[in-house]
Amino acid sequence: MLNRNSLKDIELYFSEEIDLDNNTIIIKGDELKHLTTVMRHKPGDKIFVTDGKGSLFETVFEKAAKEKLETAIITTTCFKNNYQNVFFCIPLLRNPERFEFALEKSVELGITNFIIYTAKRSVKKNVKAERLNKIVLSAMKQSLRTFLPSIIHLENLAAIVKNDGEFFVLHQGAEKKLKDVRINREKNSYFLFGPEGGFDISELEFFSNNDFYKLSVNRLRSETAVISTASLLCTI
Amino acid sequence: MLNRNSLKDIELYFSEEIDLDNNTIIIKGDELKHLTTVMRHKPGDKIFVTDGKGSLFETVFEKAAKEKLETAIITTTCFKNNYQNVFFCIPLLRNPERFEFALEKSVELGITNFIIYTAKRSVKKNVKAERLNKIVLSAMKQSLRTFLPSIIHLENLAAIVKNDGEFFVLHQGAEKKLKDVRINREKNSYFLFGPEGGFDISELEFFSNNDFYKLSVNRLRSETAVISTASLLCTI
Repeated sequence: MLNRNSLKDIELYFSEEIDLDNNTIIIKGDELKHLTTVMRHKPGDKIFVTDGKGSLFETVFEKAAKEKLETAIITTTCFKNNYQNVFFCIPLLRNPERFEFALEKSVELGITNFIIYTAKRSVKKNVKAERLNKIVLSAMKQSLRTFLPSIIHLENLAAIVKNDGEFFVLHQGAEKKLKDVRINREKNSYFLFGPEGGFDISELEFFSNNDFYKLSVNRLRSETAVISTASLLCTI
Repeated sequence: MLNRNSLKDIELYFSEEIDLDNNTIIIKGDELKHLTTVMRHKPGDKIFVTDGKGSLFETVFEKAAKEKLETAIITTTCFKNNYQNVFFCIPLLRNPERFEFALEKSVELGITNFIIYTAKRSVKKNVKAERLNKIVLSAMKQSLRTFLPSIIHLENLAAIVKNDGEFFVLHQGAEKKLKDVRINREKNSYFLFGPEGGFDISELEFFSNNDFYKLSVNRLRSETAVISTASLLCTI
């Protein structure tokens, strides 16, 4: 039977101001504006809120003032982050739209940790942190997920490989297939993607041949490799 | 060992004017312009050309006139289209960028047949055929593929389900998982995606419960479902 009663038609809001003692949530800023001005919710309406830390709250709109809105928690559902030890390491790409698309799709599919790095062949050098945070917040809500992704920026690949964990470097010339990978959830797993021109030879030397994985014998754009990897890891 | 000598660094050109009797290829139009004006190739340069029907020609730039360029075929490699019976049925989406991104990524991953349809909940109604043809041509060349994808436009879902074959309708509420699907290469397989608001209830009635498949328990945007499906089917 097709389940038509899933959570597919709700809107999800984000708030960090959860008062569990009083069973209330305060909603402010852009979230408040969307809730009242765009969606025109009124007191008594059911409002779904996440804290971005794994909890989904079913609440009721109680009262609104100009700067904040209060809802009453009815039920709380806690989710587990299956990908808490998975890190997607994406270089700055020449085309910001392609970069943002890769980020958005990865969040929709369930990835929650991003490391943006400047590859040797990255052309663009600056990270628009505020814009990227908005994209991941929006993608989290869109896909009804409850973990707000974190984005950090590291200067280069050398700073990434200092971390403890397993490295999975996506490369067309690899022998091993990413499809066959079963990640070890006890360890951190770093998935590394190259920029438009590919990794520089000095970057490849951080890794052993054992670290390389392929998705296709064909050439894939950076953002395609990112989204395909997220699809392989996260689809059920 | 990491294979650094794959075809990853070539440019690929497209021509339908392959003269096998004389072992020559004529290149015209945009392809000619890119080859001479942008890439500044000269007589003697090695040029890779595909006919979009499965053949990859390694050729040498022989001579150029204003309107056409002639290359001499050195070697010919024929590929098999593993996805010749796979049809991706994508509705017109409100946001043309998201639609075009889904199309581009699917081509990069190996899908070669597209049916664009106007869903009950499609907002946008017109198909920019010329623009879409350019996108799939460019994605084919980018990913070094040799099958030029075909795009047809059908009025609605009813016109699609008239076809003979198996139907795979992507739906968050399905019980079966797309990941478990093994397509029958002897039959046509139609993968159907819904628009932003999902399928209309009258559209769902074309199918039996057996036709529905899910990618995630989370809500995915239309273009994410398209790209994830292509990733699951086509990555090696």
